[in-house]
Amino acid sequence: MIPTQSELESLTNEFQTELFERVLPFWMEYSPDYQYGGYFNCLDRDGSLYDSTKHVWLQARQVWMFSKLYNDHKADLQWLEMAGWGMDFLTKYARRADNRVYFSLTRNGEPIYLQRKMFSECFYIMALAQYSKASGEHLENEIKDMFKTIWELAFVPGATGRPVMPGNMIEQTLAVPMILLNVIEEIADDNKSFYDSEIHYCIQAISKHLIDGKMYENLVKDGSQSETSASRLLSPGHAIEAGWFLQHWALELQDSALLETSANIIRNAFHQGWDNEFEGLFYFIDADGKSPTQLEWDMKLWWPHCEAMYGFLLNYATFGLREDWELFLKVKAYAFEHFSDPKNGEWYGYLNRQGRLTHSFKGGPYKGCFHVPRALYYCYNVLKRL
Amino acid sequence: MIPTQSELESLTNEFQTELFERVLPFWMEYSPDYQYGGYFNCLDRDGSLYDSTKHVWLQARQVWMFSKLYNDHKADLQWLEMAGWGMDFLTKYARRADNRVYFSLTRNGEPIYLQRKMFSECFYIMALAQYSKASGEHLENEIKDMFKTIWELAFVPGATGRPVMPGNMIEQTLAVPMILLNVIEEIADDNKSFYDSEIHYCIQAISKHLIDGKMYENLVKDGSQSETSASRLLSPGHAIEAGWFLQHWALELQDSALLETSANIIRNAFHQGWDNEFEGLFYFIDADGKSPTQLEWDMKLWWPHCEAMYGFLLNYATFGLREDWELFLKVKAYAFEHFSDPKNGEWYGYLNRQGRLTHSFKGGPYKGCFHVPRALYYCYNVLKRL
Repeated sequence: MIPTQSELESLTNEFQTELFERVLPFWMEYSPDYQYGGYFNCLDRDGSLYDSTKHVWLQARQVWMFSKLYNDHKADLQWLEMAGWGMDFLTKYARRADNRVYFSLTRNGEPIYLQRKMFSECFYIMALAQYSKASGEHLENEIKDMFKTIWELAFVPGATGRPVMPGNMIEQTLAVPMILLNVIEEIADDNKSFYDSEIHYCIQAISKHLIDGKMYENLVKDGSQSETSASRLLSPGHAIEAGWFLQHWALELQDSALLETSANIIRNAFHQGWDNEFEGLFYFIDADGKSPTQLEWDMKLWWPHCEAMYGFLLNYATFGLREDWELFLKVKAYAFEHFSDPKNGEWYGYLNRQGRLTHSFKGGPYKGCFHVPRALYYCYNVLKRL
Repeated sequence: MIPTQSELESLTNEFQTELFERVLPFWMEYSPDYQYGGYFNCLDRDGSLYDSTKHVWLQARQVWMFSKLYNDHKADLQWLEMAGWGMDFLTKYARRADNRVYFSLTRNGEPIYLQRKMFSECFYIMALAQYSKASGEHLENEIKDMFKTIWELAFVPGATGRPVMPGNMIEQTLAVPMILLNVIEEIADDNKSFYDSEIHYCIQAISKHLIDGKMYENLVKDGSQSETSASRLLSPGHAIEAGWFLQHWALELQDSALLETSANIIRNAFHQGWDNEFEGLFYFIDADGKSPTQLEWDMKLWWPHCEAMYGFLLNYATFGLREDWELFLKVKAYAFEHFSDPKNGEWYGYLNRQGRLTHSFKGGPYKGCFHVPRALYYCYNVLKRL
């Protein structure tokens, strides 16, 4: 085997320390809002609050994370309590009678914004599924009902409230089948056959984005990939995440062709997206090498590195290839060196292309208790297994 | 006088060359879409097309720019023709029967996206006003009718289609009264008394954003400026632009208190927003020095430097102070050195904090034939006058 036993042990310990001593305690200590419920998710480097807005994606993902940890270990009642703290707030304030879920709430739960998208609903249902398992509630029907809403929001044109325009050539965004596949992984649990057709539909839908080894963010109607920036957009971290979502299902379904495809998605996206000049994964690139229009395209964000770290470790666990192991180590080294903050806990989120920190906060409108602990936890589990 | 006559002459020539030999020819040569009408606005450094989407803000602003040049000089029929080329496309495809104006269109004019904002409508009316003056059409009633729509979109809650949410504490964004004031400057022309109450309303509305020398982007309902990032957001270039919009009106209305205020807005915003470590104006900052959440906050964009260049020159023309002249020269030097492209024409738009180019294009979804030629033209006119 390529890593020696002692190498594996030392890595396992490193991930364990990072997760249980540096990352989770940050959220345990600073995030609960004991006055109004839920979590503060806009926390500066030292845990101090800089914005009391409660972003629902991150409230729900934190519920999911702590529920997951509790469900796997049942060790720590604090985790269950922490999850319940957020679930209670979400149930009270985030979800409307029609199953739509707000994007953001004030500190005391008043709605600020509803996106014309279905991601809040997806993170909500994932929280609900893990939490109900942890708390022992039987919410199967509620979850099925919510999933029905989500499926409609995803595929009925205009259902999210965004008008359908004849000139909009984007037929499908990668994010939609991806998150649905991840949602099903969370809610199906021991009832996977119930979602059989949806699972296969999502796998097919994701596969359509894969053209000549590139995972395109947007599928356009006439099949042309060149007329607009949107049609050429690649997001390497996102593609890598799609890769491991697919690999989980390939393992579950024992589909060896899909297993191979999923591993190659991770490898190809990494090589397309790695910055050979300054290291790190670009946030966005243009498939034809043109200038992306996103202002932040060349920044190095924490989450693509989280996805890549786990993606390559999963690849290695599945195939045992040296290249995957080495790329796991490479990404892990970059991520720990640039994002980790042993002093204050949690990770920083944003670097410029050259690797210099641009934002001091640990939690923000799109960063919370999720990508870092999820990746560390998933990696830790694989490392223990190896 | 601080600048010598020869200094002034040399600067005037420099601005003339930049505008008439490098910037305008770029758009004359590469932007017209002779097949479907309108302009290509997504143009790479050498003028090559990378996206055929027609962004209405930029279509309308280019119409405005060429109409303005033609109206001031009547010298070049090509300018009128160029303006008509865009106006024709806009009239055909951008405006709906209810006066709403799309944000983006396909190459052949099909609607892609309608924002739940009123900026497309504002740029459309500015184009219409300048162009009708150039073409000799009498569209006074149409313009008044359109302005009525814009005013409603600006001030009737929910009129843009964005639902009103009880938790949304933002009462007013600076952009709204600013753009309205600029719109009135364009459409009122020789009938300013007609818009008298709107002019004063907008000036008052902008003034509310000015608290302790800082121009806040968002006014929040309870007056608190500390609970959310949005309530502490400053955009130095935007504040400077507000400063010169106000100064135009202060000169027009012969309001010396407003004149003084407007000049100080420009000076304060510059000092708050200038990056003393790497030079250039930050895109966004937090009024209390916390970490902004916008990923692009520390980037150096072309347009804040365009606004600052003209803002300080206008200040100098009004007050004759050495500090304003020196800051004009400082910003002008940074802008010409970093953004100008004498080889291919037009300016680049985006640099990282350190001043390194991050995007190769000259035109994109938010950059077109507008900020650069407007600033160069306004500066050129002031320099000639001095």
